[in-house]
Amino acid sequence: MAPSPRDASPRLQEAMKQVQEEVDKKISRLLPETDLAEAHLYDAMRYGTLNGGKRLRPFMVVHAASLFNVDPVRARRAAAAVELLHCYSLIHDDLPAMDDSDMRRGKPATHRKYDEATAILAGDALLTLAFEIMADRDTHPDPHVRVELVRKLAVASGGHGMVGGQMLDLIGEQEEFDLGTISRMQRMKTGHLFAYACECGGILGRASDPQKKALCNYAYDLGLAFQVTDDVLDVEADPNVTGKPANQDAQAGKSTFVSTMGKEQAKARAEMLVHQAIRHLHIFDGRAEMLKELAMYVLERRS
Amino acid sequence: MAPSPRDASPRLQEAMKQVQEEVDKKISRLLPETDLAEAHLYDAMRYGTLNGGKRLRPFMVVHAASLFNVDPVRARRAAAAVELLHCYSLIHDDLPAMDDSDMRRGKPATHRKYDEATAILAGDALLTLAFEIMADRDTHPDPHVRVELVRKLAVASGGHGMVGGQMLDLIGEQEEFDLGTISRMQRMKTGHLFAYACECGGILGRASDPQKKALCNYAYDLGLAFQVTDDVLDVEADPNVTGKPANQDAQAGKSTFVSTMGKEQAKARAEMLVHQAIRHLHIFDGRAEMLKELAMYVLERRS
Repeated sequence: MAPSPRDASPRLQEAMKQVQEEVDKKISRLLPETDLAEAHLYDAMRYGTLNGGKRLRPFMVVHAASLFNVDPVRARRAAAAVELLHCYSLIHDDLPAMDDSDMRRGKPATHRKYDEATAILAGDALLTLAFEIMADRDTHPDPHVRVELVRKLAVASGGHGMVGGQMLDLIGEQEEFDLGTISRMQRMKTGHLFAYACECGGILGRASDPQKKALCNYAYDLGLAFQVTDDVLDVEADPNVTGKPANQDAQAGKSTFVSTMGKEQAKARAEMLVHQAIRHLHIFDGRAEMLKELAMYVLERRS
Repeated sequence: MAPSPRDASPRLQEAMKQVQEEVDKKISRLLPETDLAEAHLYDAMRYGTLNGGKRLRPFMVVHAASLFNVDPVRARRAAAAVELLHCYSLIHDDLPAMDDSDMRRGKPATHRKYDEATAILAGDALLTLAFEIMADRDTHPDPHVRVELVRKLAVASGGHGMVGGQMLDLIGEQEEFDLGTISRMQRMKTGHLFAYACECGGILGRASDPQKKALCNYAYDLGLAFQVTDDVLDVEADPNVTGKPANQDAQAGKSTFVSTMGKEQAKARAEMLVHQAIRHLHIFDGRAEMLKELAMYVLERRS
């Protein structure tokens, strides 16, 4: 699977590739190969993170931060931390007790490449490292900024955020959810970390509250659009392109946007959400072009 | 199993009971019962934490903090956060892919009471919540203090700390470790979080560097003594008192202090370490009596 995103404009493709390369380099430096006894753990942490991911969340951090002229070195550190946290969630979600996915991005999932214990611990260590990075002076000299980065990351990714969303997702295999519950679950699973990634750039740049709010609203609409298109891709995408089997959700008996509203209405909803997301960026007077292009890409992606 | 520690002096027993009750109350407030869809997750988080634990680490936080006249409300919040993090590690360690323990403190382990997926997610959410609490203004008004609490907690509990130690522990089931590796593993598994718990009280109270160092040194010696006595208890304790089966480590083929140096030498080593731990507290001129008594208790405990 090629690392560059399909169906993105050449300008967006170039910008995404740049963030991918920079963030991968940063992650690699944050997870150095070691000859300590725990090398096995760090190998698994590298395997579970340096895997050709699209780095959407880092892209949001970096391009939100650039609206406020944040030092790119700091933005990349925060972006890497958000990605480490996202990768921990993928490693744990793929476990047999959870979504039981053997493959991730066309390669064996971390627990298949290593073993379950190593995958659980690699996830735990990545989550912990994300907080360490946010709290480190190198990320920002002002402790007010760092502590806000830490606290909001914890809220976005915790029991009422991403982890709670994953719990609901598993409950959804047994229970039928209505559209409201599916929307809330997806906001928890994806929306809060998207919103954090965008707000993170604002926090680093001491954005005003209305600016941070606009970034969050953009991210929530985009996150929901992302999940709706994910459900559409689940039923119609080519496994050779997505790198995972088709119809996983239906086979797991999960309620999805497609199962609830049908494919065509789901597509229309995603389009509406993306245009709504873009409208939130008007506050930045045309300076948020990359975030707008990202939103269009989410609508048109095929993987 | 009674919540009060056996073999502790009446004064220590009273002090430990007080911390237990206060920290349990705080944890219960930090994990309120909810009627949100993620209630199942929060039930498991409560189950995995409100389980009659001895609360050794909170005791260290509270009694180290009291050396510096820290507001007890703040000390209790930090103490609860450290305990939530400790409990996450127990929940994950008990999983079938890890230590595969069905019982914890005489009751079904979280993954047996609920299921594996819920236990993994409850652990993830508890770890995340620990960082949220440390970063919250209610824990300390000064962001310098909060960010130091967060960063050092992450270092103590991450890939070169507690999680790395657990990885080594699992590797130790396949490989024979020498005494140096066992000591380093135990320092990672237990020592760093003990040291953090003690230093945390110092950070909250703006202790001097030598004071924080003394607390850490005390905790490292005590942590090692704790693990040595753990290995001794594993071979000679009564399962009705410890609440877990005897000889677990030997059956798992793990290298332990007892398997490496024999039971009698291990006991002598624990005694030496405890006296060394106590000597580090001399810097506090007789004001650290509770921490000294705790050290003696670690030596004499039977569970």
